[in-house]
Amino acid sequence: MSRRFENVTILGVGLLGGSLGLALKARGMAGIIRGVGHRQASVDKALAVGAIDAGYLDVRDAARDAELVVICTPSALVPRMLDDLVLICPRDAVVTDVASTKGFICNLAQVTWPAPRRFIGSHPMTGSEKSGPEYASADLYAGCVTMVEADNGHAPDARAAVLDLWGGVGARVVEVAPEVHDAIVARTSHVPHILAAAVASVAAKQWDIQALVGPGFRDFTRIAGSRPEIWRDNCLTNREAILAALQETAAAVEAFRCALEQGREPALEAFFRAGQSARGEVLGQ
Amino acid sequence: MSRRFENVTILGVGLLGGSLGLALKARGMAGIIRGVGHRQASVDKALAVGAIDAGYLDVRDAARDAELVVICTPSALVPRMLDDLVLICPRDAVVTDVASTKGFICNLAQVTWPAPRRFIGSHPMTGSEKSGPEYASADLYAGCVTMVEADNGHAPDARAAVLDLWGGVGARVVEVAPEVHDAIVARTSHVPHILAAAVASVAAKQWDIQALVGPGFRDFTRIAGSRPEIWRDNCLTNREAILAALQETAAAVEAFRCALEQGREPALEAFFRAGQSARGEVLGQ
Repeated sequence: MSRRFENVTILGVGLLGGSLGLALKARGMAGIIRGVGHRQASVDKALAVGAIDAGYLDVRDAARDAELVVICTPSALVPRMLDDLVLICPRDAVVTDVASTKGFICNLAQVTWPAPRRFIGSHPMTGSEKSGPEYASADLYAGCVTMVEADNGHAPDARAAVLDLWGGVGARVVEVAPEVHDAIVARTSHVPHILAAAVASVAAKQWDIQALVGPGFRDFTRIAGSRPEIWRDNCLTNREAILAALQETAAAVEAFRCALEQGREPALEAFFRAGQSARGEVLGQ
Repeated sequence: MSRRFENVTILGVGLLGGSLGLALKARGMAGIIRGVGHRQASVDKALAVGAIDAGYLDVRDAARDAELVVICTPSALVPRMLDDLVLICPRDAVVTDVASTKGFICNLAQVTWPAPRRFIGSHPMTGSEKSGPEYASADLYAGCVTMVEADNGHAPDARAAVLDLWGGVGARVVEVAPEVHDAIVARTSHVPHILAAAVASVAAKQWDIQALVGPGFRDFTRIAGSRPEIWRDNCLTNREAILAALQETAAAVEAFRCALEQGREPALEAFFRAGQSARGEVLGQ
């Protein structure tokens, strides 16, 4: 049976926050859910879809009695939320987040939160090009791989609560250190987003391109449809790992380019063969 | 009503050739369909799924009485097929192909085939990571964007036949010059394949990556699952256009890398915004 949280506060009631509210309710995992939005309009939408029970514009009003707080704002706002919450929350509250880069957040909490730490970082690897509570779904987290910060001076009961939270909404939890997480998502998510945007921009310059686009382009560039301001922040908060990953990727592409320029057939085939088997390996196929 | 071809020969009975056979039959567009395979095993499979009525290993036996020949072999084999067919086919046969690069094929036919030319290049922009006639489908070409070589000294009745062929199986035909086609697919297909392979290879080197992969990576690298020997040849046959496209892409990524290194937020956001709107433009959204 899933754990039940009587007082839940969700900061940020967009797609991720709204879906979490719906998921907790659908599974009977929450008593009251308080949602905090940046604008009244998004709070109203979250209320309308039933993702939250009460809506707020100020985190102080919403988190004062919280047993569990989940920060679902854009990544760049998480540090300020952490600074606020450490002062506002009850001493026994459990806090987590959903930001897609983790080192800068977990390291900040490590320094500024009292030990044993009751903030444990999370990253559910889901989302959509769609945003806003109107796209929220109670099943967004079902089967979703979710990173939870590996133990690092956390309060054991707080860790257990965060693991129960994600497990309860159907996620597949993986515990990993923040810097390992960031190195991985730089390569599986951030660099692909950058390349998809670059490819779309280059393609659009080509004459009459609209008429001649196959399904491969559509899938490859799907992530280029994501929100620019979110991706600006994702990149800024994971800069070092992305710069390293871009360098590795550029080196691989440059090796291919040389082989193509020189017409070295075996090298070209080996390049594609390595990509094919690497993909299978990464996806566990 | 669709045109009917009494004697069709399909060279290469893999996914594309097999699906064409099934599509022509399902729509009553063909009398007898002769299929030529490289190995008896693939010919037998194509016969078993009903994609062809008679199987051959030698193009001379299969194309002697053909009214329509469709070359569905890997790209690299098309030039040899063209050299053979110009000698073997009846004078009034119509010939086309499905290779994903067109300049080297259409230019060869331009030089070696008699005028008015009865070979017209085609490229149905479809396919799959799956290969072989066992995956063939009568609907593979339904709604599929299909490039047909723009008029360039073709016999009018042969052009009409090729246009009727693709229209009849449900494709959305676009007439375009081979070099324009090749510049476009370099940017929408070939470079994405190269980048997907590079990203998969780089990602696989990362420790423990399997556990932490989201849906974005899966879609972005889907095309890296394609057959390496096919992609080696696609690249070799479209070398100049790909080298130019790789250079444009590398320049875009390098501009992003500099902006990230220097923390120039507006430039990062502008990069992702350009990618987002470019994708919408290319896809006509």
